[in-house]
Amino acid sequence: MRSLYPPTRLLLGPGPSMVHPRVSAAMARPIVGHLDPFFLRLLDDVQARLRTVFRTANRMTLPISGTGSAGMETCLANAVEEGEEVVIGVNGVFGTRMCEVARRQGGNVVVVEAPWGEIIDPDDMRRALAQCRKPAIVALVHAETSTGVLQPVEEISAAAREKDALFLLDTVTSLAGCDVEIDSWQVDLCYSGTQKCLSAPPGLSPVTVSERAMAKIGARKSPARSWYLDLGLLGGYFGGERVYHHTAPIAMVYALHEALCLVEEEGLPERFARHERNHLALIAGLSVLGLDAAVAEGSRLPMLNSVRVPEGLDDAALRGALLHRHGIEIGAGLGSLAGKVLRIGLMGESSTPENVRRLVTALCAELSRLGCPADTEEALAECDRVY
Amino acid sequence: MRSLYPPTRLLLGPGPSMVHPRVSAAMARPIVGHLDPFFLRLLDDVQARLRTVFRTANRMTLPISGTGSAGMETCLANAVEEGEEVVIGVNGVFGTRMCEVARRQGGNVVVVEAPWGEIIDPDDMRRALAQCRKPAIVALVHAETSTGVLQPVEEISAAAREKDALFLLDTVTSLAGCDVEIDSWQVDLCYSGTQKCLSAPPGLSPVTVSERAMAKIGARKSPARSWYLDLGLLGGYFGGERVYHHTAPIAMVYALHEALCLVEEEGLPERFARHERNHLALIAGLSVLGLDAAVAEGSRLPMLNSVRVPEGLDDAALRGALLHRHGIEIGAGLGSLAGKVLRIGLMGESSTPENVRRLVTALCAELSRLGCPADTEEALAECDRVY
Repeated sequence: MRSLYPPTRLLLGPGPSMVHPRVSAAMARPIVGHLDPFFLRLLDDVQARLRTVFRTANRMTLPISGTGSAGMETCLANAVEEGEEVVIGVNGVFGTRMCEVARRQGGNVVVVEAPWGEIIDPDDMRRALAQCRKPAIVALVHAETSTGVLQPVEEISAAAREKDALFLLDTVTSLAGCDVEIDSWQVDLCYSGTQKCLSAPPGLSPVTVSERAMAKIGARKSPARSWYLDLGLLGGYFGGERVYHHTAPIAMVYALHEALCLVEEEGLPERFARHERNHLALIAGLSVLGLDAAVAEGSRLPMLNSVRVPEGLDDAALRGALLHRHGIEIGAGLGSLAGKVLRIGLMGESSTPENVRRLVTALCAELSRLGCPADTEEALAECDRVY
Repeated sequence: MRSLYPPTRLLLGPGPSMVHPRVSAAMARPIVGHLDPFFLRLLDDVQARLRTVFRTANRMTLPISGTGSAGMETCLANAVEEGEEVVIGVNGVFGTRMCEVARRQGGNVVVVEAPWGEIIDPDDMRRALAQCRKPAIVALVHAETSTGVLQPVEEISAAAREKDALFLLDTVTSLAGCDVEIDSWQVDLCYSGTQKCLSAPPGLSPVTVSERAMAKIGARKSPARSWYLDLGLLGGYFGGERVYHHTAPIAMVYALHEALCLVEEEGLPERFARHERNHLALIAGLSVLGLDAAVAEGSRLPMLNSVRVPEGLDDAALRGALLHRHGIEIGAGLGSLAGKVLRIGLMGESSTPENVRRLVTALCAELSRLGCPADTEEALAECDRVY
């Protein structure tokens, strides 16, 4: 294979999402050095814009030089010390992953489970906290990408604070797509990704950390197990005295900056309303096709729609046909939901009425070919009723 | 700050280096999913091309989703187990950094020092190894970016193997700019960066690991302290059964692929000769200006030229004038060499006769302004004698 010409896909999976041409163009602009005065000003601006999107005043707000999972590891590697109790809500892949990452940092993980597809019950969390000796961290996934569940956080955040534990929130999929309120929800550690509702390519992880969490990190008895993700060292470059730590991924920062400009131009409330509207239209249209929402109303993510695979339908064949015959990517179920759900992302640039209609139309065609006849006109009419 | 228009710089510092327009263009191409058949084929191709550049048959050869320092952490986090002896050659910033990273993985670090600007003496390494109980890893920096020193590796690699230790080599700055022979040098773990002689933007770290090292990693008593950089898990996605681990940085992989195509088109021997020739021309020209090589002949890196700051010259003023009056970035000395050397990179796309002449001309002008008169014609003539 020589020079590369990727196919043009409509990305309606669990991420990456579509990238705005302005973001692609930004990435291709001339590279400057990571200590160039221009780049340092740009970083300051990116950090300020991230604070706006996270709804926080946290000084320590920065793009980590890795994907969302690197953000998860950043938060846990810095905040967890050997032997500390870390209480984690697990109702999908990403809660499960947090447990694994926390254990590797020496954490004593306490799992609070809920069935995949349901929220973590605050009462279950309180019970688990009551049984802890001295919980150091309580962690939740705000938008469980593997199931499509939106987790309410304020009650559990308050329970964590009562126990004097830090509160950690995964907003990889929710940030810039629905309400995320780091300061008013009293979130101490939060990480996200660029390739979901921010609609930049994957490669960076926005992270924000409260002063309270930074105080605990500053008082660690032993250094974090990661040097690359050490927030103390990173703080010396980001907003600090510009001490060289590692070479920032310049082009990715350009892309994130442009994506954040687009978020500002649209406005957060408008952006959230757009995600909600397209989600409702999609769910309405899909119900006509026999693709029912897998998550109870009220707990559904607006940017990631989990729908049940009808009895007898070969979901891999359906996804393959969408990709190869229509150029549309949607996601499979993960873990215990493999083969049972489809995951349809309407994130950032991907969340438009046109994309909803295009997907519903393609699904109708392919469901009919796979022996589940569907009425395109009726499905589109259901979508339109929402708009 | 709104949409972003970076200044056009000539990047002659210690990295990032100039990016070819084809690489910028590749980055801006349509994003596909990280499980898209196209992307998986592309990854296979990137891995094959990396094997060619590393001169290895190692199956485990992949771009880590982070910068060069993430590659360093990948190698050490996977290969080092609690309490193991890790013998590290330290003659600059990056050897020092390896010690810190290895300690955070639980390693018992044995430092073998040489003065900054000189090579690690194989005899010193052998003596240190003789005093170890059971050294697990011997680590060296091939191209010490902080000093400009090229480290001979074969003798120390053999000494490591005699002791049945794994041999780790940092080739962040050397890869694709001078001879790197992973298999014939018997290197077990090696990491590099994209933003030096590969001339892609920073953001990925090519890593290669021998079967011998993978066997040790596979037999670990406890999991690696990093989940994000866990080679066992990464192997499930890269070349394996495509098990989802994290979302690959798609656009950065496009860029790396195109950069590797350019390397192939030029040819490795031709590329190395180009780096060598431009290095010799630069050093010849600079000697006329009173900027003498800081490293002894025979130990000089062809892609990173460390030159002494003449007595009485304000090096920060010189670097500032080059940047703001000529748009040229060069690097400062780091650590104990701060204020004492300038670091001039001629890496990848940056290494051209035109750039050598442009820098020499600009340096002449600015040295004259700063009270160190220099003869441009004579300096350029010295450069041309090499070409």
